[in-house]
Amino acid sequence: MNVEILSTGTELLRGKNVDTNAAWLSRQLARAGLEVLHHQTVDDHFGRLVDAFKLAASRSDLVLLTGGLGPTEDDYTRTAAEEAFHRPLEYRPELWKRIEERFRKSATRMAAINKRQAYVPKGATVLPNPNGTAPGFLLREGGVVFVAMPGPPNEMQPMFRDHVLPKIRATADFSVWDGFSYGLPEATVDEIVLGIVGTRASYGLTVRSGRVNISIRTEGARRKQVLDDLSRRVRAALGPCFMDGELNEVVARKLIETKTTVAVAESCTGGLISHRLTEVAGISEVLLEAVVTYSNASKAARLGIDPALIEEHGAVSEAVARAMALGVARTSGASIGVAVTGVAGPGGGSERKPVGLCYMAVGDRVESKVFSGDRSNIKERAAGYALNMLRLRLIGAEGYAGKTGQAAAGKAVGVRPRR
Amino acid sequence: MNVEILSTGTELLRGKNVDTNAAWLSRQLARAGLEVLHHQTVDDHFGRLVDAFKLAASRSDLVLLTGGLGPTEDDYTRTAAEEAFHRPLEYRPELWKRIEERFRKSATRMAAINKRQAYVPKGATVLPNPNGTAPGFLLREGGVVFVAMPGPPNEMQPMFRDHVLPKIRATADFSVWDGFSYGLPEATVDEIVLGIVGTRASYGLTVRSGRVNISIRTEGARRKQVLDDLSRRVRAALGPCFMDGELNEVVARKLIETKTTVAVAESCTGGLISHRLTEVAGISEVLLEAVVTYSNASKAARLGIDPALIEEHGAVSEAVARAMALGVARTSGASIGVAVTGVAGPGGGSERKPVGLCYMAVGDRVESKVFSGDRSNIKERAAGYALNMLRLRLIGAEGYAGKTGQAAAGKAVGVRPRR
Repeated sequence: MNVEILSTGTELLRGKNVDTNAAWLSRQLARAGLEVLHHQTVDDHFGRLVDAFKLAASRSDLVLLTGGLGPTEDDYTRTAAEEAFHRPLEYRPELWKRIEERFRKSATRMAAINKRQAYVPKGATVLPNPNGTAPGFLLREGGVVFVAMPGPPNEMQPMFRDHVLPKIRATADFSVWDGFSYGLPEATVDEIVLGIVGTRASYGLTVRSGRVNISIRTEGARRKQVLDDLSRRVRAALGPCFMDGELNEVVARKLIETKTTVAVAESCTGGLISHRLTEVAGISEVLLEAVVTYSNASKAARLGIDPALIEEHGAVSEAVARAMALGVARTSGASIGVAVTGVAGPGGGSERKPVGLCYMAVGDRVESKVFSGDRSNIKERAAGYALNMLRLRLIGAEGYAGKTGQAAAGKAVGVRPRR
Repeated sequence: MNVEILSTGTELLRGKNVDTNAAWLSRQLARAGLEVLHHQTVDDHFGRLVDAFKLAASRSDLVLLTGGLGPTEDDYTRTAAEEAFHRPLEYRPELWKRIEERFRKSATRMAAINKRQAYVPKGATVLPNPNGTAPGFLLREGGVVFVAMPGPPNEMQPMFRDHVLPKIRATADFSVWDGFSYGLPEATVDEIVLGIVGTRASYGLTVRSGRVNISIRTEGARRKQVLDDLSRRVRAALGPCFMDGELNEVVARKLIETKTTVAVAESCTGGLISHRLTEVAGISEVLLEAVVTYSNASKAARLGIDPALIEEHGAVSEAVARAMALGVARTSGASIGVAVTGVAGPGGGSERKPVGLCYMAVGDRVESKVFSGDRSNIKERAAGYALNMLRLRLIGAEGYAGKTGQAAAGKAVGVRPRR
């Protein structure tokens, strides 16, 4: 089945919004065994939208469109579908009733143009939208299934999950395994994976903020056995660098499983470590507290750090990072403290302590790195590095990604991991 | 000039990674007065990549490609350019020297396949990559400029800014104004903007987590005057709902400008408010500290909240939200305290306190909402709501988005804003 995603929105092409819908949909489809072969982004232009619909219908079996279902002047999905498929728009009184009711409930004034959202192309199946006024629709045209969903992710996602996926789920004729590695460069991971996979399967790698995603795909009758074998060997070869999920999920899961309480003290990462951990449900059982101690006064008051220590070493230093981690554990009663202090920039750097220099501490262990990129990149890399140190500690491989432990890694995979 | 963005990476089509590069590039291009008309995403497949290059060259004047320049087996950008444009790959010893040096410096083992990155299509200009081993390249083919850049944002962005943008910057033949609104539904904003803009310009709206982005575009000789007039009137009509930037930037700027110190106490948002504020440089002058007090013990110890208050009202309550905001201001010495407590889910909800119920407090003012969506959505909406309350307070319009102040808004724009 050839699947195509069509995102509409001038704002996507002007870069105002990042198109997270396409990625989310692709992920859901991959899990259902479906692969996306084309992704088009089209601006809010009637003619170009009609052309895009026709192109998609000519080469794909399933077309998933997001956006353009709002009530405003530049929402063309309904009318473009009317034009492309010769399906006059029909007024559906039950939709109008639901829209009116929604506005009444939220005590929000309804603009007259909201009535547009009660129209769908003739013969289309309406897809309910519990989180918004714009209903979606599904229509079959020849052999092509065309699904239109609203753009806001919190409206699109439940619609897809509850009303679209059950209709299109198909038996996969391939198997995919995903794993993650943290702390090794992409080329090294590639060498390892290629050495194991050879010509028995296809694979892909992607890198983001220090972690490499490995995706292996097998086909044929024995695809499950082959995949089991390959993934087991990749896992073993990567040793402690291997993770079976995203870093924050892996860490949170491990903390919860082992009932290890944790507390976080952040300076330059500004709450990002805590934010990433709290994305995972159930973390409240083990995350006792997190503090963002930007000011020296707050470091002293909240964490009990001796101002003389800051005076002597500077706020961005190994000694202060350690004192923060130990301090937050002590004051909160958590069994492990995690801390980061650094220079996120763009200002505040010096020759001795350049922008990007960060100290990450887990318990009494401190490691330092100079991260490149802008303020946001530096925060992200430092938060990831600290979370990975915590992960290594939880699996009993503390220091693996740091100055020690390289020999062990070298033995396992025949290469020397990144310092 | 017709501009096209081409993103390559199977992982983008499988949804492993969100394509933030396309959005970032579009934004930079829009500021330079260039508009992107096409965006294609292509998987790591030699043949489809060659086809995509040819299609782009046939319809666009400037093609910006990201990805596929890594050293691994599935990086096809160099070879696909060779094939599509009949430009044999050339070995550039100076590139190889730079790659070797980079590996030496980082004390990382170099895999043999890294040598691939020292090849570029014949006649291409090399684009230096200060943050990685993969150089980019620019080639001119007939009237088309083709630019290949690496996929990791921290490598692509400086390359584009320093080596590509200066080469392609052109005089804009249109003007664009961007503004944001927070607290009004999209259809209401649309009615307001349409009433003002009429047929004098084109405009687009996009919604994300409660904020509406308004983008007005004018053409012709008087485009700057027309844009000034329209934007001034939209601004006035939106009143306190208007923002001239993203919420976190507007709030941070205002705090810094007015030297207003702030402290944050978060429960269900888990550090997100603090993370968003600390994305803005200079915030360290005014953000004294932030605490994530997940546990009741931590609410008592860190914020001085009487456990009896939590016992009486529950941790998710108006009284506790207020006590958190006042408590964090008092203990940190900040002039304003901001707090959120709520049920982020998926567990922990009850009939009286459902998943999504959040109390947001700024100083002693508390507002409550029931947000829909998943854990991540709820965190985002609650953090945005609290930041907007802080913004309104800083501009002297406290309560505007809440239960009071609707009359004022209704008078200003002839409609009643969302509660």
